[in-house]
Amino acid sequence: MGRIKTDTNNSRKEVIVAKAAALFKEKGYKAASMRELADVVGVEAASLYNHIKSKSELLHEICFSVANRYGQFMESVEQEQISSLAKIEKILRFHIHGMIEHFNEVYVSDREWKYLEDPYLSNFQNQRRTYRKRFAAIIEEGIQKKEIKPIDATTAVLIMLHAISGIESWHRSKQRISGNLLEENMITILVGGLKNE
Amino acid sequence: MGRIKTDTNNSRKEVIVAKAAALFKEKGYKAASMRELADVVGVEAASLYNHIKSKSELLHEICFSVANRYGQFMESVEQEQISSLAKIEKILRFHIHGMIEHFNEVYVSDREWKYLEDPYLSNFQNQRRTYRKRFAAIIEEGIQKKEIKPIDATTAVLIMLHAISGIESWHRSKQRISGNLLEENMITILVGGLKNE
Repeated sequence: MGRIKTDTNNSRKEVIVAKAAALFKEKGYKAASMRELADVVGVEAASLYNHIKSKSELLHEICFSVANRYGQFMESVEQEQISSLAKIEKILRFHIHGMIEHFNEVYVSDREWKYLEDPYLSNFQNQRRTYRKRFAAIIEEGIQKKEIKPIDATTAVLIMLHAISGIESWHRSKQRISGNLLEENMITILVGGLKNE
Repeated sequence: MGRIKTDTNNSRKEVIVAKAAALFKEKGYKAASMRELADVVGVEAASLYNHIKSKSELLHEICFSVANRYGQFMESVEQEQISSLAKIEKILRFHIHGMIEHFNEVYVSDREWKYLEDPYLSNFQNQRRTYRKRFAAIIEEGIQKKEIKPIDATTAVLIMLHAISGIESWHRSKQRISGNLLEENMITILVGGLKNE
């Protein structure tokens, strides 16, 4: 037990949030306790409360930091002057990186958001819905410009996001290919499947 | 409370297994009780035990009926004299149909198999692993014949199976396209992404 370890890039609160994401992924939000979190952070439970108010604040931090990051990224992609297919490729690569490099946070925000409390719960659900609609709109635009095959855009979003969430099982597999190779293969298959030729 | 309702195509046991799949999907295997199952079947709990021994027998029935169906289908596809890409399309359509028409059973066998007890648990895991390897082998064969782009076959299996398990959210969505359209869109994107052009 002692002080919370930090490095120059992360505040104590960020360290706690990162450890909470790992714990929630491992045990599920419901089953995880603040006592267990204190154990993995290496401090007394009481010290945690100097930095965060409650377990639900931690879930809130994790879910909204992911949702905000995605929202900002979508915004920047929408403004780029590139083809629809290039926009989609950027979005997919962003999601793939998220699943590889921020796996705990992305996993928790994807699976455990249902334990958020209102008004945060409905706010989060709205953000998710809006994000998917904006993604579908880019696909629609590509279909109109005949860059993309005539498909149902909502289905395409569903297929792509679920395919990427399959990276979960890549994390668990013993003989796995490199993250770069995984990314290139996913882009080849998913973007290749949309392209109008 | 009364006799278990059957029709000419289903034995009483089959009725019970189907209701159990719906219940396990809804509540999770762990949380579901035999008393609740008796309620939805519409009989006394004691009557259930005339047909099945335990809750774990039900999980076993569900998981292995799905796994055996998939194994038999793979066997039949492997023996067909058609291109690798056509084999893959057949397998994908089979999975998509499974997710649309036998959703409860497929969902439970996909998510709740971890509650099987050994030796069934390791048997089931082996069947899953073997199935995916056989699927990957068909992709490999297609790559060698230059029908399919040079990709990592294991990754392609992961992408396709996870994309299809996303049909779960299609079931939940309010404004959904028809099952046929969903299937055609999935085939367009996924098979299109593999094709070497």
